[in-house]
Amino acid sequence: MNVIVGGGVVGLSIAWRLAREGLPVTVVDPAPGRGASYAAAGMLAPVSEVAYTEEPLLRLGAASLSRWPSFAAELAADAGLGPDLSAGRSAGLSAGRSAGLSASLGPGLGAGLGGGAGTRSREAFGGTFGMIGPEGAAGRALDLRADGTLDVAFGADDLAALDDLAAFMDKLGLRVERLTGRECRRLEPMLAPSVRGGLLAPGDAWVDPRRVTAALLAALDRLGVPVVRARVTRLLRDGDTAPGVVTGAGIGAGTGGGTGGAAGAAAGAVTGVRLEPVPGQPEPAVREIAAERVVLAAGAWSGELADVPVRPVKGQIMRLRSPQPLLGRCVRGMVHGAPVYLVPRGDGELVLGATQEELGFDTRVTAGGLYELLRDARELVPGVTELEVADVVAGLRPGTPDNLPIIGTGEVPGLVLATGHHRGGVLLAPLTAALVTAAVTTPATTPATTPVTTTAPPQAPSTAALATARTTTQTATQTAAQTAAQAGLSTGAGILTGEEGELAALCSPARFRDIS
Amino acid sequence: MNVIVGGGVVGLSIAWRLAREGLPVTVVDPAPGRGASYAAAGMLAPVSEVAYTEEPLLRLGAASLSRWPSFAAELAADAGLGPDLSAGRSAGLSAGRSAGLSASLGPGLGAGLGGGAGTRSREAFGGTFGMIGPEGAAGRALDLRADGTLDVAFGADDLAALDDLAAFMDKLGLRVERLTGRECRRLEPMLAPSVRGGLLAPGDAWVDPRRVTAALLAALDRLGVPVVRARVTRLLRDGDTAPGVVTGAGIGAGTGGGTGGAAGAAAGAVTGVRLEPVPGQPEPAVREIAAERVVLAAGAWSGELADVPVRPVKGQIMRLRSPQPLLGRCVRGMVHGAPVYLVPRGDGELVLGATQEELGFDTRVTAGGLYELLRDARELVPGVTELEVADVVAGLRPGTPDNLPIIGTGEVPGLVLATGHHRGGVLLAPLTAALVTAAVTTPATTPATTPVTTTAPPQAPSTAALATARTTTQTATQTAAQTAAQAGLSTGAGILTGEEGELAALCSPARFRDIS
Repeated sequence: MNVIVGGGVVGLSIAWRLAREGLPVTVVDPAPGRGASYAAAGMLAPVSEVAYTEEPLLRLGAASLSRWPSFAAELAADAGLGPDLSAGRSAGLSAGRSAGLSASLGPGLGAGLGGGAGTRSREAFGGTFGMIGPEGAAGRALDLRADGTLDVAFGADDLAALDDLAAFMDKLGLRVERLTGRECRRLEPMLAPSVRGGLLAPGDAWVDPRRVTAALLAALDRLGVPVVRARVTRLLRDGDTAPGVVTGAGIGAGTGGGTGGAAGAAAGAVTGVRLEPVPGQPEPAVREIAAERVVLAAGAWSGELADVPVRPVKGQIMRLRSPQPLLGRCVRGMVHGAPVYLVPRGDGELVLGATQEELGFDTRVTAGGLYELLRDARELVPGVTELEVADVVAGLRPGTPDNLPIIGTGEVPGLVLATGHHRGGVLLAPLTAALVTAAVTTPATTPATTPVTTTAPPQAPSTAALATARTTTQTATQTAAQTAAQAGLSTGAGILTGEEGELAALCSPARFRDIS
Repeated sequence: MNVIVGGGVVGLSIAWRLAREGLPVTVVDPAPGRGASYAAAGMLAPVSEVAYTEEPLLRLGAASLSRWPSFAAELAADAGLGPDLSAGRSAGLSAGRSAGLSASLGPGLGAGLGGGAGTRSREAFGGTFGMIGPEGAAGRALDLRADGTLDVAFGADDLAALDDLAAFMDKLGLRVERLTGRECRRLEPMLAPSVRGGLLAPGDAWVDPRRVTAALLAALDRLGVPVVRARVTRLLRDGDTAPGVVTGAGIGAGTGGGTGGAAGAAAGAVTGVRLEPVPGQPEPAVREIAAERVVLAAGAWSGELADVPVRPVKGQIMRLRSPQPLLGRCVRGMVHGAPVYLVPRGDGELVLGATQEELGFDTRVTAGGLYELLRDARELVPGVTELEVADVVAGLRPGTPDNLPIIGTGEVPGLVLATGHHRGGVLLAPLTAALVTAAVTTPATTPATTPVTTTAPPQAPSTAALATARTTTQTATQTAAQTAAQAGLSTGAGILTGEEGELAALCSPARFRDIS
């Protein structure tokens, strides 16, 4: 049995792909689809996101974006979502919008990044996407659209930052379009008059995450995969002698710095999970599920179960209801020093997002959070004030020290990590599912079960040390991949070759062993 | 049978008082307690409200405030709310707050206004209220508190307005306290540093309207009064020949300017109501209820059923959740030219209110409405930003041309009006129930059923003409009372004497016949 801990977009995607491979799978989550995925805006926007992050994440994002069209099409089919289930939701809205915006991201992306992901992404969205995307069944069922993202600037500083970003994109071979304020308003007439310029990433896409998790749950149901509504209180370890003690399942070699890390590498393989019921749900039939393999996809809560450097980063979003769509594409900008974005849904809904708050496990929707969202969104698009408030929700993103996800097997046998996706869970779900599936279905060249305490530092890296990784991402991830290869560790890509192997190395849990 | 159309705080209060008199009563409302009462903050603040309105309303408010303590005590008893039902909710919060604030409203109010209401009010809240109020069963059950209202000012203009208000209050014999900014912050430490002065109305009280309507429904249930979850589509009239045609039940003598006013005074007495089911509720057993008397207490929707000059005035409020109470009393102020108030509940909740929007029957919670509430509340009490958002709701106040309610019988036999309470429904509910009960249980000296078409103008007053009443409130209401007396009309106070008769005259439906 493969137990997936976590029923967000990442965990459910993994469960679905593993089940499709014929593997026995069970998902455990107290409220599937109601975590960070529920609060996500669903931007599939690696290009636009590069403004706020680093090149390795751009590469992961581009690789996953290229998988989204086929992922969506297969998901819609498996979930039994026909074209008539959501007819008319988005077709009318996107008509006539993408016509003037040909995919302008050239083959340079692939060259610049050393892989083929960028090129594939453009082709997928410029070509195939037209048939299975917004106008197709999968597009409508999941509200998948690819009308681009427009980053806008107000002041001289913002404009300069856009110029820098455009130059950087150009160097990477990403042919974004630099627009004047007037051109921005021609594209999006509801933009504030004070917008002085913009940067259009024409191929950036987005999807409705709530539809995605609902479709994944439907697909799992049709495949006969149980989804247990319960909370996992701990991972069971081989040789557990004190059932009352929470046992760490560290990715580090030493004893854990993690929340419950009482035992380190000395403890044996992960052998299952312990459950506790949640209020309002039926008592689970069992309190323990034995598993050949446990996939930890618990998002911000992953650090509660294993020694992974994941912290909660709170985000509050607001969904507004609009009789006519205010925007034709995603719009984002810096207001009062914080990024704000507006994502239009096919049914006229407009998502405002999102705060970024480091407050621990706090999921309260606050007066201050709403105030900032509304204030900033009004500056970008004054017309939002007329819209009805449909929903307000807070979620916890799983942040990591280097903003990159943690995917693959560490050195604890039986445990696969798929967490730390931060702002990118929805975008990165197809790639994550593919990497985990590859790791699970392909025997590693070197046994993943070999403890490597001899080559590892005696202590797990401290939080402070991990934090330094933020500024040395590329070096760290390169080092991690090299080290992983040298040490013969499984990075979740034991025999993955070419692009997938490189991507897997970027996400390898092993990278955190080497920063200290 | 007495049919009460409308299950808000006004309609339910009337139903309860009539049932206590032994009269047969049925209430009809599609969603009792979920209209304007649900969105109300529950301020029982005639003194503070005078800042924004006129002296006649102050007089009505003071008279109703004096009835609140016994109203609440009897209601709690009839609803079966013991002291243990809500123990601990407010006792701890209000302890030590009212000590330093003795009731400072002197007997001058009675003298200045020609009645005894003000004095009674103070005595009630300064004396009896201590036992049945916040520390008593009724106080806890309904979250009834009397810790006062603090009006604050930021700029020179606001301070001058407070001085004017204080002078006006003084003239009325209302001994409010004029405070410096420092004194304001000593009372309420969470107030913004920019607050430069304030006016304290120490005896102003407030109550949780949702608890009041819940208690009223419980009391009605115990008294065996049916509450039909249905919508009244029209009032049945004596001599109805076209069942499909909505028949006006005008208060004016001529043919109606009202929404459905197809027939005027020529149509006969109101003989009942026609119902239609509402989604999600059981089909009502009957589609028509015959009634000796129909009390129209449908709030903003009253104008849809009879020719009364009531219009919807939208208000949006927000309820925040606070671990510790931020405020000890109601705080209000003018911010950006609009009044904003914060009302603390016994359980730590803080209500922010309220927008005033003239948008017809629009109950959408909007981004702009929330933005203004949050922006203005932050200026008064910056700490609100840390609080959790518990609830956001919009309601429709029933506004009238002169801001005074319309209570009593008009010239249509069988119809009693109890509507147009605008911002004061919760405050005025006890007085309204008393006036309606008096009108119903006491035969008028002159038959209320006599049509007065001979003395009335041929046309119902136009909206424009009614609007002029806003600036001539006192004259108009005095004239109305005089005219009512001269014409021998029932004002709902046919044999009411002294104070009640005068109050009834202020609210008489007849006043709108004489403005043109």
